[in-house]
Amino acid sequence: MKPTVGVCYYPEHWPEDIWHEDARRMVEAGIEWVRIGEFAWSRMEATPGVWTLDWLDRAIDVLGRAGLKVIMGTPTATPPRWMIDKHPDMLAVDANGNARKFGSRRHYCFSHMGYREECARVVELLGVRYSKNPFVAAWQTDNEYGCHDTTLSYSDAAQTRFREWLAVRYGSVDVLNDAWGNIFWSMGYNSFDQIELPNLTVTEPNPAHVLAFRRFASDEVAAFNRVQTEILRKHTDTPLIHNYMGRELGFDHFDVGADLDVASWDSYPIGFLSDRLDASEAQKSAYLRQGDPDNQAFHHDLYRAVGRGRWWVMEQQPGPVNWAPYNPAPLPGMVALWGLEAIAHGAEVVSYFRWRQAPFGQEQYHAGLLYADDRDAPGLAEAQKVAEIARGLDIDADARAPIALVFDYPSAWAWHTQPQGADFDYFHLTFATYKALRRAGFSVDIVPASAQDLSGYKLAMAPGLATIPEALIQGAKDAGTLMVLGPRTGAITEEYSLPPRGRPDVEGLDVYVDRVESLPPGQTEAVAGGGAVCHWLEELSGGADALLKLETGASVLVGDQQAWYLGGVPDENLWDRVIGMAAGHVGLTVRPVPVGARRREVGDLEFLVNYSDHSVEIEGETVAGCGVTILRGGVCIART
Amino acid sequence: MKPTVGVCYYPEHWPEDIWHEDARRMVEAGIEWVRIGEFAWSRMEATPGVWTLDWLDRAIDVLGRAGLKVIMGTPTATPPRWMIDKHPDMLAVDANGNARKFGSRRHYCFSHMGYREECARVVELLGVRYSKNPFVAAWQTDNEYGCHDTTLSYSDAAQTRFREWLAVRYGSVDVLNDAWGNIFWSMGYNSFDQIELPNLTVTEPNPAHVLAFRRFASDEVAAFNRVQTEILRKHTDTPLIHNYMGRELGFDHFDVGADLDVASWDSYPIGFLSDRLDASEAQKSAYLRQGDPDNQAFHHDLYRAVGRGRWWVMEQQPGPVNWAPYNPAPLPGMVALWGLEAIAHGAEVVSYFRWRQAPFGQEQYHAGLLYADDRDAPGLAEAQKVAEIARGLDIDADARAPIALVFDYPSAWAWHTQPQGADFDYFHLTFATYKALRRAGFSVDIVPASAQDLSGYKLAMAPGLATIPEALIQGAKDAGTLMVLGPRTGAITEEYSLPPRGRPDVEGLDVYVDRVESLPPGQTEAVAGGGAVCHWLEELSGGADALLKLETGASVLVGDQQAWYLGGVPDENLWDRVIGMAAGHVGLTVRPVPVGARRREVGDLEFLVNYSDHSVEIEGETVAGCGVTILRGGVCIART
Amino acid sequence: MKPTVGVCYYPEHWPEDIWHEDARRMVEAGIEWVRIGEFAWSRMEATPGVWTLDWLDRAIDVLGRAGLKVIMGTPTATPPRWMIDKHPDMLAVDANGNARKFGSRRHYCFSHMGYREECARVVELLGVRYSKNPFVAAWQTDNEYGCHDTTLSYSDAAQTRFREWLAVRYGSVDVLNDAWGNIFWSMGYNSFDQIELPNLTVTEPNPAHVLAFRRFASDEVAAFNRVQTEILRKHTDTPLIHNYMGRELGFDHFDVGADLDVASWDSYPIGFLSDRLDASEAQKSAYLRQGDPDNQAFHHDLYRAVGRGRWWVMEQQPGPVNWAPYNPAPLPGMVALWGLEAIAHGAEVVSYFRWRQAPFGQEQYHAGLLYADDRDAPGLAEAQKVAEIARGLDIDADARAPIALVFDYPSAWAWHTQPQGADFDYFHLTFATYKALRRAGFSVDIVPASAQDLSGYKLAMAPGLATIPEALIQGAKDAGTLMVLGPRTGAITEEYSLPPRGRPDVEGLDVYVDRVESLPPGQTEAVAGGGAVCHWLEELSGGADALLKLETGASVLVGDQQAWYLGGVPDENLWDRVIGMAAGHVGLTVRPVPVGARRREVGDLEFLVNYSDHSVEIEGETVAGCGVTILRGGVCIART
Ligand SMILES: [Zn+2]
Ligand SMILES: [Zn+2]
Ligand SMILES: [Zn+2]
Repeated sequence: MKPTVGVCYYPEHWPEDIWHEDARRMVEAGIEWVRIGEFAWSRMEATPGVWTLDWLDRAIDVLGRAGLKVIMGTPTATPPRWMIDKHPDMLAVDANGNARKFGSRRHYCFSHMGYREECARVVELLGVRYSKNPFVAAWQTDNEYGCHDTTLSYSDAAQTRFREWLAVRYGSVDVLNDAWGNIFWSMGYNSFDQIELPNLTVTEPNPAHVLAFRRFASDEVAAFNRVQTEILRKHTDTPLIHNYMGRELGFDHFDVGADLDVASWDSYPIGFLSDRLDASEAQKSAYLRQGDPDNQAFHHDLYRAVGRGRWWVMEQQPGPVNWAPYNPAPLPGMVALWGLEAIAHGAEVVSYFRWRQAPFGQEQYHAGLLYADDRDAPGLAEAQKVAEIARGLDIDADARAPIALVFDYPSAWAWHTQPQGADFDYFHLTFATYKALRRAGFSVDIVPASAQDLSGYKLAMAPGLATIPEALIQGAKDAGTLMVLGPRTGAITEEYSLPPRGRPDVEGLDVYVDRVESLPPGQTEAVAGGGAVCHWLEELSGGADALLKLETGASVLVGDQQAWYLGGVPDENLWDRVIGMAAGHVGLTVRPVPVGARRREVGDLEFLVNYSDHSVEIEGETVAGCGVTILRGGVCIART
Repeated sequence: MKPTVGVCYYPEHWPEDIWHEDARRMVEAGIEWVRIGEFAWSRMEATPGVWTLDWLDRAIDVLGRAGLKVIMGTPTATPPRWMIDKHPDMLAVDANGNARKFGSRRHYCFSHMGYREECARVVELLGVRYSKNPFVAAWQTDNEYGCHDTTLSYSDAAQTRFREWLAVRYGSVDVLNDAWGNIFWSMGYNSFDQIELPNLTVTEPNPAHVLAFRRFASDEVAAFNRVQTEILRKHTDTPLIHNYMGRELGFDHFDVGADLDVASWDSYPIGFLSDRLDASEAQKSAYLRQGDPDNQAFHHDLYRAVGRGRWWVMEQQPGPVNWAPYNPAPLPGMVALWGLEAIAHGAEVVSYFRWRQAPFGQEQYHAGLLYADDRDAPGLAEAQKVAEIARGLDIDADARAPIALVFDYPSAWAWHTQPQGADFDYFHLTFATYKALRRAGFSVDIVPASAQDLSGYKLAMAPGLATIPEALIQGAKDAGTLMVLGPRTGAITEEYSLPPRGRPDVEGLDVYVDRVESLPPGQTEAVAGGGAVCHWLEELSGGADALLKLETGASVLVGDQQAWYLGGVPDENLWDRVIGMAAGHVGLTVRPVPVGARRREVGDLEFLVNYSDHSVEIEGETVAGCGVTILRGGVCIART
Repeated sequence: MKPTVGVCYYPEHWPEDIWHEDARRMVEAGIEWVRIGEFAWSRMEATPGVWTLDWLDRAIDVLGRAGLKVIMGTPTATPPRWMIDKHPDMLAVDANGNARKFGSRRHYCFSHMGYREECARVVELLGVRYSKNPFVAAWQTDNEYGCHDTTLSYSDAAQTRFREWLAVRYGSVDVLNDAWGNIFWSMGYNSFDQIELPNLTVTEPNPAHVLAFRRFASDEVAAFNRVQTEILRKHTDTPLIHNYMGRELGFDHFDVGADLDVASWDSYPIGFLSDRLDASEAQKSAYLRQGDPDNQAFHHDLYRAVGRGRWWVMEQQPGPVNWAPYNPAPLPGMVALWGLEAIAHGAEVVSYFRWRQAPFGQEQYHAGLLYADDRDAPGLAEAQKVAEIARGLDIDADARAPIALVFDYPSAWAWHTQPQGADFDYFHLTFATYKALRRAGFSVDIVPASAQDLSGYKLAMAPGLATIPEALIQGAKDAGTLMVLGPRTGAITEEYSLPPRGRPDVEGLDVYVDRVESLPPGQTEAVAGGGAVCHWLEELSGGADALLKLETGASVLVGDQQAWYLGGVPDENLWDRVIGMAAGHVGLTVRPVPVGARRREVGDLEFLVNYSDHSVEIEGETVAGCGVTILRGGVCIART
């Protein structure tokens, strides 16, 4: 696979007479793809039913004739204001019961069927008009599902559809009452029509109720997206794509991804370090102008899984952004590093957001590849560098990493619903696991809990996986993969109750989690030989061999030949020990990298990236601060 | 009085075929009481008016025949879902005006008269059916009034009844306007119908308005409870009990207690240290798996007062719980320590919550005496130990401690309404006083502000008592009790205005509080000779003798033979000095205990408890870490 | 101008028989002015249309005959309860959509036309009745506009009038769509009737929408006030005054001030340090009982500008207050210091709030000059001291300081709407500039952005001025004033978009702000030679001379002879360097003052004030801790 570079462009924001020159400069910079259209509904249909698309025809024509391939975005994330007059109840409702008003974007409830029909109408119309256009080479549905906390809506529409969804899932309300354990506090229902959404309850609602609502809400996102993909599939066989966000856990991306050809995500390394990563102050300071050294890679690997091997970066940060609490500028080199790192993880396209800085609206300080006054911004040369290097690369999209990490959205919902310890967070736990694997120098594949074929993986980690599918365990057995489970893996059933015969319920692994403790920040339990448990500690019993013990003598890591169980959240040192033991057990060699540096191997290529601001040595190779070194068969073929 | 052990049990949660074995194991563990029924309304009356009680008959029969005495809970804390259909306006309304929805528990407004009638209906029916049952030996009304902030409701029902309550209290709106000082900001009313609940005002409402609302809301809880006690009294003379919570200040527990025979509370030492005590991080860390060394004792003494000498622990933490921000497990020994400490303070029954861990619903990680899969959990053996030791004890329920501490709910409401300093908190102040008395080795009785007979008390402390009843002062005089008042004692009238002739208005104590200062955290004023004032400092004038002065020369403790006044919130050192001086003045001997250890004397018994994790020496006796030593006449009769 | 002393008095709070004695004691203390009436509507018109003013006639008579001049307050900040029955929709609505209920004060929406008519009615009636009264010598409109966040209301009334206001401003909705850049996210409108208030949007609304709403809301305050001034002007030519608050940025005080004769403000130095200044903990601790050494002066200078030279302190803190998070008492001397400092900055009247401490209502712990029980409180003697010293002073109200600082309310709205860095705050920035000028010993005039005549100013600072009026730049050129612009000056247009040809757009100053960074707390960029940039850093290009550079070599201060541009927020050291360089450039001499001390020069008078608690030396003069030294022509004429 030959990676390429793209850019996001808004012809509707600029006078038509500069489109040609814009397109020419894009091509000159090595850009091959251009995404358009995703916020332009009001320009397409300024009043209901009156379509104005000639400008869009011309824009596509200008871009295409210049040599660019167009990604056509459906504009459903920004319905025009008249739509609210037509469907006043289409607005989502927040957990306090307030309608979320028009005036920004994503102002719709996924469960509103009237709005779904409007979306079908616009997608059909665009599909008919542009699917045969030779310059339109891919489609994007909507924009950033879930962004701005938009997955959950407590609207009447959502309540109505939730009841229907429950009726389908449970068949009868008695089955539901039993499944949820509603006898607990006399919470039983006499009919589905009595079931409300789980907000504004006196104290916490039944976790089974919440988990069902989260599953429902996720299904609604998938159903909403499916309306668009089903229409577009009738018209085109170019790839259908959605651009997901970072650390967005509101819905199951694998479910939405099942209807797409390519997964993509919007990668804002510095913005995300500021606004959504729970890193220490020291970590945030060290990578202030670079972003966290693992966050991009984690999402790249995640979306490679979501896209079943095919994935893009649809929006790549090109300079300082505007929407995080603090918005520093990238160090020189980082815009190129981010692009090349995406390619290292298999991105087919790295598309920068946006071409030219907007002089109006909500993102006036968001950098583009050009300044608002048309001068080149610093990101442009770096994007061009990425395009140049990409031209010399060919990535083996089918290569598997030696280690798999299970990532599961329902587990995030489950532990968010009842964290048990205030700082227990599924993303934090899986991300810490990923970081430890990367400190040890490993490349990693992320896999869903529904994975069955684990062939090629010597080791699979499944921390915090709420419910363990039998097929996953079977897959590991078939492939001879060592499964490292825990903490909190297999702790509940799909209906959020304790599993009947102890947990985790893995054949051949004789362990009980008798009880659990959550620990406040600063409280740790030392492990004999080094490292400690923090946040979460389980009291284990059963016949499995003790592999690591607390200094108190209690077992904290136990296991047999095929599966291990880890009874607590490790600190960094303990993670390094656990990874080292597991790697040794399966015959993998740990190859640690310096602080801030990371390795990604794919086929015969080895990418060394350096998020630190000074150069580092990795096994004899020097990697510049904020730089990338690419080796093929051990020989350097490019560096920045 | 011979203390015994109990347990909370939910037959409706378990298959009927294990009830017998459960009952047998309870008896085997030395358990004599079992509480049932309080969340089972939906099982009793699954649809309106259709009663299903045969299962409950059988459960009582099984338990009773096994030798257990049943505490029958009225299920009014968890009305079934159909009740909301019947009375849609019965839900409480939060301060933002949102109805607090069905889906957990305590989803009712105390002021809704329709729901009160429903409660009367179920209590009457249960009273008729079970009051003559020989196995039913006590009744519990509802469950944990006020828990989850449920005392205050801003519903229409509450507004209507508040107006009626005001009309009764003030007679005319002119009297109310004068009493509240409504002229202050033109806040006067022309009729009672104009008076709204004091939420959502532009800036803070009139404190007199808020205090009246708090009194009203408290009265509503008492009235709600009284509906049940009046019905049950007609049918039974077994004890009527309610299970209060810890640090629950929403309503006047003494008022509710006046209608009961026995007070009880739900004691979760580790949960409460995590979720409701404002201890320092160091203190929270030192007692992470034990709970605060004074919090249980404080509430034991408080509820002994509420129960006029008769009190129980209705729910005792048996292991880790699930609902606090962090939920560590008790150290070995603590489950027994907590039970024995309750007995030291006069508990008739210590009842563990719950028998078996629930595998569904909101409390799946809440420990029981059994694990969910039926194995013995660690708490069981410790509860059994308590039962064994209890069998050898006889507690003098009438013994008085040498020192009284006044605790007054309206004072908590007053200072919460206008703290004047952001961290001024009545519970914090009285609890700090109690801690200082306990560090000095004293046993303490808590008394209400309505106390009149202080005979036997050499010393009475009344910090922060908003309004001083004349009868209390007279009682102290009659008994020769030294009253230590202040800070902030007698500072307002019952209608929340400044008292007419200076404050505190105590005959013979010539002191004025000219003005007050609240001090931010970290700001202290040193006292000559040691210790300091923090949070709150008063400028005193008047002729009373200065007993302690600030280093600036200003008086901070003044007094005469019968009453002292303390003009600031002491730090620990100053509290120790003040207690030492007062004890010396009245001829009591300070007998300090080591850090983490506490003494409770009752009759000829002396209980030494050790909340620290290592053994300590107390006047020659060794008390194990997390252990208890019981002396009778100075001779050890039991230890854990 | 001969400064005098006043007091705020509430005859309606006290029995009529003490009014005479109160008036006598006021006069005895040297008080000449007394403000009354502003919260007394319910006493004036207890039921709709029934006026009771005889008590007010008598109160004015008693006060006037004792020798006092009366300031008559219109009572419109506290409409009586019956008004809400008459106009249920007059309540303001908060950003969550909740009506802000009756029960405190300022419970009205500025946009409710029915309430405006009610205000006109009461003002007309009072104007007719009292304008000819010889004792009524000034009028105050309403009370503390904007206090308790009351400027913004999301009511239906506000929405209706906002649409009308938009129609006037933009003429057509297409013009508005273009001006706001609504194409950005398809946010365009088809008619003004579709435009809602910018609350409860899914993510942040268009900043142009918010800025328009802020302008509208500010205009509404001015319009509301104008109703009263237009009526009063018909009846009286005594001064019309409003009492503004401290750090109140909700509306444009200059606009309201344009309709008044005198500006006044309510100065609570200790309360404001506690509740609204973002000082460091060390700073808050050092000035706990004094207030910030610059905050009063800043507001004095600001309101002198708002009053076009004529200004008062309408309410001066007389002791501890009650409404801040913490409320310590002033150190001895501070009540006098505050009063004299106000006079140093040109206050015509310093009026203490309040005469006697209120025993009821919301401010029972708020000190007065008397205690509630009638004894002299400590503030009385200090107020008397101010009156004595004031008698010997004559202030040149027309004298200009050598340096001007531009203060602009729309800039505060702009940067609050999109701070870009979470802690970027316009007040903080301008106040830091002011502090640096004062550390250097300079007296300062604050001027609005509409200032055109800068004659006499050698230097003018305009940090963070969102949009630069051409007339301001021209004024500086005409006057030969060095303008120091930046950071963030001229960064947006009036419609909140990026200015077309780079910014700031100042003729002759060749600088571009290519991009900006916001920096989290603790992140700084060192400047070569000393000092650092924090919070905010701009990347500058263009041909202007570099005057200061970062250690990285990037320019941070650039300029030509007439204008400089500062590309970041300086820390204290850098501010001192910048001020020193600018002063040197224009021939002003820096005369630093000791920590806590400040200098104010006016005509031939020099006031030295000392906010620290120990005496300091200033150029040979000793100023006592919490003391003031006044020099005339260099000779001491008074000290405290
Ligand atoms: Zn962690
Ligand atoms: Zn304290
Ligand atoms: Zn700063």
